[in-house]
Amino acid sequence: MKKHFDVGIIGGGIIGQSIAYHLAKEGVSVLVLESHKIGTGATSAAAGMLGANSELENNDAFFQFAKESQRSYHILRDELSELSNINIQLVDNGMYKLAMTETEAESLKAVVKKHETVEWHPKEVVLEREPTLSSLIKGALYIPEDGHVSPTHVCAAFSKSASLLGATILEHTPVHSITKTATNEYELSTPVTDFICNHVVVANGVWSGYFFKQLGINAGMKPVKGECLSVKSNEINLERTIFYDHCYIVPKGDGRFVIGATMVEDDWNIVPTIGGIQSLIDKIKPIMPSISSAQLIDTWAGLRPQSDDGRPYIGQHPEGEKIYFATGHYRNGILLAPRTGMMVRDLILNKQQNEDYMNAFSLTRKHAQTMR
Amino acid sequence: MKKHFDVGIIGGGIIGQSIAYHLAKEGVSVLVLESHKIGTGATSAAAGMLGANSELENNDAFFQFAKESQRSYHILRDELSELSNINIQLVDNGMYKLAMTETEAESLKAVVKKHETVEWHPKEVVLEREPTLSSLIKGALYIPEDGHVSPTHVCAAFSKSASLLGATILEHTPVHSITKTATNEYELSTPVTDFICNHVVVANGVWSGYFFKQLGINAGMKPVKGECLSVKSNEINLERTIFYDHCYIVPKGDGRFVIGATMVEDDWNIVPTIGGIQSLIDKIKPIMPSISSAQLIDTWAGLRPQSDDGRPYIGQHPEGEKIYFATGHYRNGILLAPRTGMMVRDLILNKQQNEDYMNAFSLTRKHAQTMR
Amino acid sequence: MKKHFDVGIIGGGIIGQSIAYHLAKEGVSVLVLESHKIGTGATSAAAGMLGANSELENNDAFFQFAKESQRSYHILRDELSELSNINIQLVDNGMYKLAMTETEAESLKAVVKKHETVEWHPKEVVLEREPTLSSLIKGALYIPEDGHVSPTHVCAAFSKSASLLGATILEHTPVHSITKTATNEYELSTPVTDFICNHVVVANGVWSGYFFKQLGINAGMKPVKGECLSVKSNEINLERTIFYDHCYIVPKGDGRFVIGATMVEDDWNIVPTIGGIQSLIDKIKPIMPSISSAQLIDTWAGLRPQSDDGRPYIGQHPEGEKIYFATGHYRNGILLAPRTGMMVRDLILNKQQNEDYMNAFSLTRKHAQTMR
Amino acid sequence: MKKHFDVGIIGGGIIGQSIAYHLAKEGVSVLVLESHKIGTGATSAAAGMLGANSELENNDAFFQFAKESQRSYHILRDELSELSNINIQLVDNGMYKLAMTETEAESLKAVVKKHETVEWHPKEVVLEREPTLSSLIKGALYIPEDGHVSPTHVCAAFSKSASLLGATILEHTPVHSITKTATNEYELSTPVTDFICNHVVVANGVWSGYFFKQLGINAGMKPVKGECLSVKSNEINLERTIFYDHCYIVPKGDGRFVIGATMVEDDWNIVPTIGGIQSLIDKIKPIMPSISSAQLIDTWAGLRPQSDDGRPYIGQHPEGEKIYFATGHYRNGILLAPRTGMMVRDLILNKQQNEDYMNAFSLTRKHAQTMR
Repeated sequence: MKKHFDVGIIGGGIIGQSIAYHLAKEGVSVLVLESHKIGTGATSAAAGMLGANSELENNDAFFQFAKESQRSYHILRDELSELSNINIQLVDNGMYKLAMTETEAESLKAVVKKHETVEWHPKEVVLEREPTLSSLIKGALYIPEDGHVSPTHVCAAFSKSASLLGATILEHTPVHSITKTATNEYELSTPVTDFICNHVVVANGVWSGYFFKQLGINAGMKPVKGECLSVKSNEINLERTIFYDHCYIVPKGDGRFVIGATMVEDDWNIVPTIGGIQSLIDKIKPIMPSISSAQLIDTWAGLRPQSDDGRPYIGQHPEGEKIYFATGHYRNGILLAPRTGMMVRDLILNKQQNEDYMNAFSLTRKHAQTMR
Repeated sequence: MKKHFDVGIIGGGIIGQSIAYHLAKEGVSVLVLESHKIGTGATSAAAGMLGANSELENNDAFFQFAKESQRSYHILRDELSELSNINIQLVDNGMYKLAMTETEAESLKAVVKKHETVEWHPKEVVLEREPTLSSLIKGALYIPEDGHVSPTHVCAAFSKSASLLGATILEHTPVHSITKTATNEYELSTPVTDFICNHVVVANGVWSGYFFKQLGINAGMKPVKGECLSVKSNEINLERTIFYDHCYIVPKGDGRFVIGATMVEDDWNIVPTIGGIQSLIDKIKPIMPSISSAQLIDTWAGLRPQSDDGRPYIGQHPEGEKIYFATGHYRNGILLAPRTGMMVRDLILNKQQNEDYMNAFSLTRKHAQTMR
Repeated sequence: MKKHFDVGIIGGGIIGQSIAYHLAKEGVSVLVLESHKIGTGATSAAAGMLGANSELENNDAFFQFAKESQRSYHILRDELSELSNINIQLVDNGMYKLAMTETEAESLKAVVKKHETVEWHPKEVVLEREPTLSSLIKGALYIPEDGHVSPTHVCAAFSKSASLLGATILEHTPVHSITKTATNEYELSTPVTDFICNHVVVANGVWSGYFFKQLGINAGMKPVKGECLSVKSNEINLERTIFYDHCYIVPKGDGRFVIGATMVEDDWNIVPTIGGIQSLIDKIKPIMPSISSAQLIDTWAGLRPQSDDGRPYIGQHPEGEKIYFATGHYRNGILLAPRTGMMVRDLILNKQQNEDYMNAFSLTRKHAQTMR
Repeated sequence: MKKHFDVGIIGGGIIGQSIAYHLAKEGVSVLVLESHKIGTGATSAAAGMLGANSELENNDAFFQFAKESQRSYHILRDELSELSNINIQLVDNGMYKLAMTETEAESLKAVVKKHETVEWHPKEVVLEREPTLSSLIKGALYIPEDGHVSPTHVCAAFSKSASLLGATILEHTPVHSITKTATNEYELSTPVTDFICNHVVVANGVWSGYFFKQLGINAGMKPVKGECLSVKSNEINLERTIFYDHCYIVPKGDGRFVIGATMVEDDWNIVPTIGGIQSLIDKIKPIMPSISSAQLIDTWAGLRPQSDDGRPYIGQHPEGEKIYFATGHYRNGILLAPRTGMMVRDLILNKQQNEDYMNAFSLTRKHAQTMR
């Protein structure tokens, strides 16, 4: 006999687990099917920056969505710790987006006018607060709201909490196909067994593209590999995350500094290469010379799922099937996980939705905006 | 445009890589698709015992096949080292199958009459040669031909050699479906892209069961999880592999001793449990008391693919499709990998085959024999 | 030319680093010499329980000292995070000391009368709050104040903070001898170079015994090896630390559970043995049966420095040399590190001291009390 | 009561273990005292190249000694495997010393005239045999005798064999001082206990310098830190070790390639730095461009013990004490370990010695030759 669930979620990364958690809290019977182990894909590869301001440039629906998600981490920290006794390692010290040239400085100063929460800090202020940085910097944009979490801790906390609230979470269980049954339910076919669900959520990152194709959805999805490394050094002390030219240095609460990330398009191989590591070191050295004497702790890589316009796909199947998508979060999966979980929960439970978000993340939207 | 290969192999474990190697040597254009990383499933979980005599009880086709496979490792060692510069760590010191009771001793002595290459060694002889063993043993069957290899080294050597001979090997590329094209070729559908092949080999261990179902083949396949651990100790010195009551201690050439393996039916979760480790320690302690002072180095687990009768499925699709199967090797995947690779190569290239083997491993055979 | 410091500290574990931090805060020029790497001895082996109430039985000076140290962790958390951006992972959920028999229950209930902060919780209350525990328990003593920290995080935070405040911390620098110079300073002799210090603190755990002998101090010091393991499981959820029969289960904020510890006297070899791991599993299983299905993550061991009466040695050289000792903390090194650091700081800076503490931890005290 | 041994060896690296093995074979009662774990210092940091020809330039006593040592590895492989069942991973495929400029080519061609066993291979020959190398090379010196071993396997095999022959090997036991007793024996003082020995061998690498000072020996000893990394790639296939400009790529029998090593003088800190790793990548890239796509597996560092002239100190205390030294092997510790073990054995057992070696390695020799 096949097992039956109300909602079957394909993908046990931070997005899938956030959805599972938010649904389980409402008493929904949830199944999560993960092909490998929980949180070991793009989730574990991320540095955990909550860069709503630093990553997004326009004050649009996407930005609002990101800010809401960022804020909800403060509530989740306590909620998840209460339930699962796992600490998501939220750090709230803000971020410096550096200018290394006068042109960059001008461009960052212009941002201050648009966003009231950010400030321009001249070189002297930045160096006094972060003396580890190079004296060649020209100043920095200070973004007090852009903190960071530990992605694996968040994912584990969502997962354990969902599980304690009744969700079934199966690792090593890849889904090969979604097929509709005679009774208008969905069968999720796996090597282990088959599962019957009333609703299905596709949330397995770049591998979601396979189900787009299987379900006849015409939406782009490709991997952008990101390589990272972590270092340790008593000579480096950073209070805030540092961001420059798509690279970042995130000071972790265990004394490590996470440095990332390369962007290699259309590479499906999840190993960090010597070339990738070299390029990161070359980029970080001018902004923080003492990196040279730091100890290399670890290197890793992950595949960011990239849609055609760099924004996520969050929404229902265009033809009204009870199949939902939550993927394509690109560089912002950790940031957007909480709000994405809530949005999918509301879609499934037929609660009222923010129309702007539904349009912005629809699978059939026009991709007017160019890729970031 | 879709990529085209003569043979597409699903599964990059030791079986798939052996097939790839043997085909690439014949100049065939080969593709291997592995869902995770090469050799990280049951292959990496195995201790590498080449237990043709110790594991198999009847002098039948299966036993002959196993003996041929065992012997071919001697040639492969040199061949693969020459090509790939990887040393498969073949050790040829034989095995002791212990008797701890008089009944067990009688039963092992009976084996000597059936197999001319094995010998009965009384307690004193065994303890003189392996003084690390408990003085409570009653003697042991000595099997000179049952040595061991390093499964990950074998798999890496097959893979690198195949690759150098022209094979294409893709990791992180799960195959979701095999479909026949209008031109009578096969399309292998993956999240990365689709591939067109003239022949397909299903060789992904216990996960092959999914394709049995998809292709309408009525043959059993279920996982039997095996948990292992490795230890180090200057107080333990073993020259030969020790085998007792389905458990073994394999002395590795780097000073470690690999101890395995539990047998947990129908458990798909690939993590070693506290309970499994405890049961192994409890089993090994009476036969080698000094295990208590050894250092635990590592623990791991893997899923053995078990057919209905415990013998592998090696053969063509029953209805003549150019789809081949090489799976269900249960406890004997490392032992049988070389000969399996040759047999599948011969099937695809239409070379003459041993009829007994074809019958013994056919997917539609009668499962007269009970499970071991 | 030899390098000169005001205070030279031998030992870079949590005790030495706490002393370094507390002195550096006062502007003292400090040198820490660690023979291996910072915090990799007994510090890294500890589970981090702050068990003032659970470990100590008498309401005496030792107990008061422990309570003060325990409380100061709340201030240190913020202070160290501010300076070093390292989070010491303080968790404050209290501890359950279990009773498995009626006799044990009676004995724990008696404790409630002596300590007003602890409570007796009957079986039903305990199981409602910690449903993972065995239903065979008879109840538990609830100790709200006994939380836990991450010892390596505390040690790294002390070390980085001290370093940022000007301390010099050298790893891989074993001290071979302390000799007095003609000018009444002390020369610390190492393979790297020699250092001259006005004051010396011996704080290298069980290895301090060597300097006792070299300096003619007649005080006992021997190792009590402790082996630990950590596990993960979605089926285990504990909010509080569990303590029973000298063993504990500490729920860590990353989802792991640390289980410890064996007590092996006079064993200097820092490797966890198969026998030790087996004994821990055997002890934990009756109080938490679901441990059997948990995944083993790691195993390790450390040497607790044990004095003749199980209490630390904190004090000055009996003959007035400017040599100080801070060692012998046995099972309580993490708990006592903050207050020990303050006490040694006060001794060196000639600040007023608590007489009871000076007597209780003096190197020449009478060891009236028997070992715990 | 103190324990008594005929020979006490300070240092459990490959040098100390070779001495222990060669003495234990003669029935001598041997004690090895290692401050950390066996073979974890410079031994484990080495790539294991047996570069008698590639590293040494003059056909002198040092070179002869090195060649004898290199050859004895062939006998040791079998001897140690027989005893300990550990395989030292001897690979005998020779080495290419590259020329990247015409000047370098001329200089290497000149070597051919001096050493009859080496050959000059023009660019085409080299690229045919090692197609992974850059097409910018100008040719290479082929040195058929310079193979490699696995240093940790050699050290473990020496250690286990010595132990099985009766030697006592204690880890985590640092020696703080060597003092002469009233009965003309030597007391080795450690935190664990003291040991009495008739003879003492100082063989603890760069840390031997401390005993030089303690024993009044005027001989230089300083660390030259070497950083290494290992990579994996199916695109790289090397049969021979590659050597260029003090850096090397050693193809290991498990598919890894070890790349080393930096040379950082007077740095006692045993961690690989980002700067060191970067410099290795920068050096290897021009000679093997495909390194960029390889996966980084691991990084590490070790301290080579460097004497004043780069040659080892092997000999007796200059004033006739029964104290012997075997240290200062600099870049050649693995290569020289076998012959060093034999030489120290012969010194202690008063067997006849090669006079040239005694002069070349004497602690009181004139350092006429400049450092390499």
